[in-house]
Amino acid sequence: MIQVGVNGYGTIGKRVADAIRAQPDMAVAGVAKTSPNFEAKVALERGYPLYAVDAERTAAFDDAGFDLAGTVDELVADSDVVVDATPAGVGAENAELYREHDTPAIFQGGEDPDVAEVSFNARASYEAARGADSVRVVSCNTTGLSRLFAPIAEAYGIEKARVTLVRRGGDPGQTDRGPINDTLPDPVEIPSHHGPDLNTVFPDLDVDTMGMKVPATLMHTHSVNVTLEREADAESVRELLDAESRLFVLPPELDIDGAGKLKEFAQDAGRPRGDCWENCIWGDSITVEGRDLYLFQAIHQEADVVPENVDAVRAVADTADREESTTLTEDAIGLDG
Amino acid sequence: MIQVGVNGYGTIGKRVADAIRAQPDMAVAGVAKTSPNFEAKVALERGYPLYAVDAERTAAFDDAGFDLAGTVDELVADSDVVVDATPAGVGAENAELYREHDTPAIFQGGEDPDVAEVSFNARASYEAARGADSVRVVSCNTTGLSRLFAPIAEAYGIEKARVTLVRRGGDPGQTDRGPINDTLPDPVEIPSHHGPDLNTVFPDLDVDTMGMKVPATLMHTHSVNVTLEREADAESVRELLDAESRLFVLPPELDIDGAGKLKEFAQDAGRPRGDCWENCIWGDSITVEGRDLYLFQAIHQEADVVPENVDAVRAVADTADREESTTLTEDAIGLDG
Amino acid sequence: MIQVGVNGYGTIGKRVADAIRAQPDMAVAGVAKTSPNFEAKVALERGYPLYAVDAERTAAFDDAGFDLAGTVDELVADSDVVVDATPAGVGAENAELYREHDTPAIFQGGEDPDVAEVSFNARASYEAARGADSVRVVSCNTTGLSRLFAPIAEAYGIEKARVTLVRRGGDPGQTDRGPINDTLPDPVEIPSHHGPDLNTVFPDLDVDTMGMKVPATLMHTHSVNVTLEREADAESVRELLDAESRLFVLPPELDIDGAGKLKEFAQDAGRPRGDCWENCIWGDSITVEGRDLYLFQAIHQEADVVPENVDAVRAVADTADREESTTLTEDAIGLDG
Amino acid sequence: MIQVGVNGYGTIGKRVADAIRAQPDMAVAGVAKTSPNFEAKVALERGYPLYAVDAERTAAFDDAGFDLAGTVDELVADSDVVVDATPAGVGAENAELYREHDTPAIFQGGEDPDVAEVSFNARASYEAARGADSVRVVSCNTTGLSRLFAPIAEAYGIEKARVTLVRRGGDPGQTDRGPINDTLPDPVEIPSHHGPDLNTVFPDLDVDTMGMKVPATLMHTHSVNVTLEREADAESVRELLDAESRLFVLPPELDIDGAGKLKEFAQDAGRPRGDCWENCIWGDSITVEGRDLYLFQAIHQEADVVPENVDAVRAVADTADREESTTLTEDAIGLDG
Ligand SMILES: NC(=O)c1ccc[n+]([C@@H]2O[C@H](COP(=O)([O-])OP(=O)(O)OC[C@H]3O[C@@H](n4cnc5c(N)ncnc54)[C@H](O)[C@@H]3O)[C@@H](O)[C@H]2O)c1
Ligand SMILES: NC(=O)c1ccc[n+]([C@@H]2O[C@H](COP(=O)([O-])OP(=O)(O)OC[C@H]3O[C@@H](n4cnc5c(N)ncnc54)[C@H](O)[C@@H]3O)[C@@H](O)[C@H]2O)c1
Ligand SMILES: NC(=O)c1ccc[n+]([C@@H]2O[C@H](COP(=O)([O-])OP(=O)(O)OC[C@H]3O[C@@H](n4cnc5c(N)ncnc54)[C@H](O)[C@@H]3O)[C@@H](O)[C@H]2O)c1
Ligand SMILES: NC(=O)c1ccc[n+]([C@@H]2O[C@H](COP(=O)([O-])OP(=O)(O)OC[C@H]3O[C@@H](n4cnc5c(N)ncnc54)[C@H](O)[C@@H]3O)[C@@H](O)[C@H]2O)c1
Repeated sequence: MIQVGVNGYGTIGKRVADAIRAQPDMAVAGVAKTSPNFEAKVALERGYPLYAVDAERTAAFDDAGFDLAGTVDELVADSDVVVDATPAGVGAENAELYREHDTPAIFQGGEDPDVAEVSFNARASYEAARGADSVRVVSCNTTGLSRLFAPIAEAYGIEKARVTLVRRGGDPGQTDRGPINDTLPDPVEIPSHHGPDLNTVFPDLDVDTMGMKVPATLMHTHSVNVTLEREADAESVRELLDAESRLFVLPPELDIDGAGKLKEFAQDAGRPRGDCWENCIWGDSITVEGRDLYLFQAIHQEADVVPENVDAVRAVADTADREESTTLTEDAIGLDG
Repeated sequence: MIQVGVNGYGTIGKRVADAIRAQPDMAVAGVAKTSPNFEAKVALERGYPLYAVDAERTAAFDDAGFDLAGTVDELVADSDVVVDATPAGVGAENAELYREHDTPAIFQGGEDPDVAEVSFNARASYEAARGADSVRVVSCNTTGLSRLFAPIAEAYGIEKARVTLVRRGGDPGQTDRGPINDTLPDPVEIPSHHGPDLNTVFPDLDVDTMGMKVPATLMHTHSVNVTLEREADAESVRELLDAESRLFVLPPELDIDGAGKLKEFAQDAGRPRGDCWENCIWGDSITVEGRDLYLFQAIHQEADVVPENVDAVRAVADTADREESTTLTEDAIGLDG
Repeated sequence: MIQVGVNGYGTIGKRVADAIRAQPDMAVAGVAKTSPNFEAKVALERGYPLYAVDAERTAAFDDAGFDLAGTVDELVADSDVVVDATPAGVGAENAELYREHDTPAIFQGGEDPDVAEVSFNARASYEAARGADSVRVVSCNTTGLSRLFAPIAEAYGIEKARVTLVRRGGDPGQTDRGPINDTLPDPVEIPSHHGPDLNTVFPDLDVDTMGMKVPATLMHTHSVNVTLEREADAESVRELLDAESRLFVLPPELDIDGAGKLKEFAQDAGRPRGDCWENCIWGDSITVEGRDLYLFQAIHQEADVVPENVDAVRAVADTADREESTTLTEDAIGLDG
Repeated sequence: MIQVGVNGYGTIGKRVADAIRAQPDMAVAGVAKTSPNFEAKVALERGYPLYAVDAERTAAFDDAGFDLAGTVDELVADSDVVVDATPAGVGAENAELYREHDTPAIFQGGEDPDVAEVSFNARASYEAARGADSVRVVSCNTTGLSRLFAPIAEAYGIEKARVTLVRRGGDPGQTDRGPINDTLPDPVEIPSHHGPDLNTVFPDLDVDTMGMKVPATLMHTHSVNVTLEREADAESVRELLDAESRLFVLPPELDIDGAGKLKEFAQDAGRPRGDCWENCIWGDSITVEGRDLYLFQAIHQEADVVPENVDAVRAVADTADREESTTLTEDAIGLDG
């Protein structure tokens, strides 16, 4: 059993913890939180040992009647691998702590690439991460594009890719985020940071990205254009993508027009938290004009990096190869494509 | 086992079906749908016999590869009780069908009160519904107010109640509903229909309601004022409400500011579809000034009527009294207040 | 001519400047801004002398090619009255500056009441402000309620008022404000600060207020209940309110359902910036049940305090009585009720 | 004076009427409306003769106290040119009426191209429309792209263009339009109808378009990619676009991040209804990578077709050439680039 500590039990951390617990070869050593809110309550109800991030704020947990197992130092000491899911930028501050304890660490996409040795995507860079001391699971958007581009590059070659990322303004519980009624070029500069971030996974990919932000909370939506090196037709692209376990090609008869119904479908299917771990690609949108491939995909920002984090744990622990790991991960959480 | 047919397998119907299956004394005889969309797919995956509403549209189900068990007539014939969860107004059209088969029917709040013998709320009018041929589970908003007013009326008496209902514009998957950026008095006329609807449950309640519609999809939010007949203090009101199983008084330390975090809490706790079956009352908002009680509550429109429908089945089947039924219902679905 | 300096040329300040320029007895001495954005550009195009708030940031104006007339100190020195429309809390910091120059100052509703001698509403507290050294124009919401309650109190007496304020999350250009998809009790505590703020204008008014925040940018919407001391009927209340120049009772045939169409009407009518200076009361919503009066009103947060600021200038300069001032103000800007 | 009748006095029609009245060589013969709402009231206040669309509904105008000048037949008979700004699809039904009276007609982009002889954009197809019996001003989105592509094609040649159109869900007053919290591929199929519509103006342009719909009301936002035939650099593209009177290249120092601040700038500048008649292109977004040009532009859907309609009137009346007409139009309404 790989003992995994989760530092930062928020949107990403709580999902990763549950996914790790579901694995046959892993256990949750504990989770660390800064404050005793509803997520701390759920952590305890789930039986996760709860650690305080800040020794000076343990009193707040006592007041709320929440038992602490210790502080984050102890959690790191007791873990074989740490998943750091703290807010963007905090991971870099924590890196020293993990090094002190010689505990391999998985960081998230909010950190700069140089926080870790390897930028990780299970489909595209698993092997490079085996045995590393630190990896960074790339962001939700970069994960979504990595999964899509890897098979396309293999099958047809990518001459150039152009992506517009229409991003959700905030997660559903982030009530202080806007915009309320606007569509923002964000960033205004082109390319957005997503292109360069993709290049940390695919160094030679020629890709230009444009980012926007809109008043929606459920998912990001990408309009994707790939100029292929070799001819293709829409049907064979559809089949190629359909064969990837972390890509879900939406059949038109399901009558799903956006993220609202996608999440509803996931909820109805019994997925925990209505999580869509896969990229959701509209089957009807897959179009090829000459060598230009086009499609729309939706990315559940809270969920798609979750299986990647699980695989990243096995990669740094070096206990499985890519195929073993991804199969194990998916079987355990019930991701059946 | 009470065999229950669910006619109309949409937002409400699918939740009611799952809640009925969870009961020890009930079984889902089948569910009827008009079209083979994602919800039909889930129905089959859950093993619910699927019936076509319209004999002329069975071909569409065949095309989508969905096996039908028959048409809705057969479902009604084979059911001890039917729950009608078709769109507002369609229930009334279906009433004749249920009468023909002499099958007791549960209608929803989108129907006019005269569709059924009794307007039903488990807390307030269970006994009146025992053995009835037809009952109407009142709407999500009326259900939320009935649960709140019943214990308050018993404990303190209600001289007059005034409620502003700030309603969600549409459910999360209803992408054709607005408004996008507006707050609408809706209806402009006062009282809104909610007051008279409450009077179908509490004939003597003096209540004035005002309705609005806003660009939100997750929950309705009520600002409630009750002028009590007898003096009270906030703490004892809090305790009174806390003791009701279908009222959840939010403790401030959970740090939940709105419907987004409420749904997240429900999802984290493993609730199916993140459903909040209870009224969610902000504990910190419970205030008494003189004989005026004030509070805010959020109502998950998709979920609060679900346990009520289950109880309504037992009421018309007359197999349990109120306390037996509500306890059974709650234990079976995991509603622990 | 009263020379008026406007310190803080943002949402409120720019509107107040234009309204002051329109008056026959006032002139804009200049406007002060912190940074050279689009509003600074417009200020210069309108011919307002532009002053830098911060002597250290004048270079930024130079870089943008914007000519400065000086710094805020000089503006205050050259003004007979200063309108401070800086962000909430900054006004209090500026108070000392105004005192040093012995320049009477008008503050805005974002400041605490004790920033000024008088809490000002033209309809309700004009006389108290005459000749004062400092007044605070109460907030957009308090202004809207003051205008409504003053005539009602005079005509029927107010036994008790209860208001739910459904507030816009942010102004149209405030793209960093949420919520995106939620309805927030805000504040959760009852009464919200609006009740006590009203009491700075009407010390004896018995009023309880409840605040919410929603994903809309155009206007606040109030659901108002007033228990009258004397009997009334809806028609006479409608006439009473209709006779007030700063209350606009919406006739149903205009077919205006919310703030979107209200702003469109104002734009169509040629109002600058589509400003609705008046409270907009839905005529059809005015209802009386017993001694309980109910109605809905929309408040254009960016605009309703504008005529009040103009009147406040005359009040502190003590150059006109209430009726003279409000008539002058309204004629000059084209507010014809 | 060209006498212009405006049939359909809604979002587009009322703006076109005001722009026509502002022209030195045109007059508004009258405007036709279906119902006596707030827009009818404004039409009368502005002194436009008001015609009823439907002879059977004149009573409603009488009831509202609105004087009618006649019915739409008479308006068409008395006009030299008719601008049809009725809802999408209604224009085609009206075509016969205009033919009967031998009145040249301008249709809008909601109609199919075959409603008229020419698809009109002032910059790109003015000459083709001179003396035509009917033209269709292309939609807001197609207008925005036509204005952009015309100068780029002339200066650099367009090898291929790819555009993602992130469209507003509805206009500010359209409170029944969604989505509330979703980003919809709309249409899911690629290319969206915008590409083929562009080809009615530029028959040889190789362009692929992808459409989305988001919960925003103010403007559409386009992410544009153009593969140029000849090399270019960002600075010269910026200058090229800046020189076009109907393209507004946003300087970064104005600090405008989206449609909210854009509209506020237009309002502050005194534009009627805060209308942005020009494409608004973020200067900082103009980027060239190799022969790939990228940029973001915002399109005020309610406004950009207004000057085009004015020019279309002169084109069918054949009273001016393109340059004369566009200069006249812009000077008259105050469009100064
Ligand atoms: N939310 C998303 O959509 C998303 C998607 C992909 C990647 N990410 C990345 O994942 C990381 C976590 O983001 P999130 O959305 O889960 O954030 P979050 O705010 O939901 O959760 C962060 C958690 O860390 C805790 N925390 C704060 N400071 C801490 C500290 N010093 N030490 C330990 N814990 C601390 C917070 O209390 C919170 O529980 C970020 O790098 C983010 O960029 C987020
Ligand atoms: N959604 C809510 O928030 C909510 C809350 C409380 C009560 N209700 C009430 O519940 C009822 C159902 O609403 P819903 O939101 O579940 O609607 P829905 O549209 O989500 O589901 C209705 C289902 O009925 C099916 N249907 C349509 N016509 C039918 C017919 N003739 N026969 C059988 N099935 C048919 C549809 O295919 C769909 O699956 C309505 O009365 C509504 O007012 C809804
Ligand atoms: N916006 C509203 O809806 C509204 C309604 C009523 C009252 N108010 C109140 O009016 C006041 C102004 O609010 P606003 O919405 O106009 O804010 P705003 O942010 O739109 O404008 C404030 C302006 O002040 C400038 N500024 C910032 N710091 C300054 C300083 N130290 N000195 C001088 N200028 C400075 C800013 O650059 C900006 O131009 C606040 O008290 C607010 O609470 C606002
Ligand atoms: N609103 C936009 O964003 C936009 C942008 C560009 C083009 N257009 C196109 O402009 C046209 C008008 O759209 P709009 O947004 O102004 O619509 P609208 O609904 O705002 O206005 C249409 C007007 O026509 C009137 N009308 C309805 N039926 C009529 C009839 N039979 N005869 C005469 N008048 C009738 C309505 O009362 C209304 O006043 C459509 O073709 C639309 O596609 C709209």
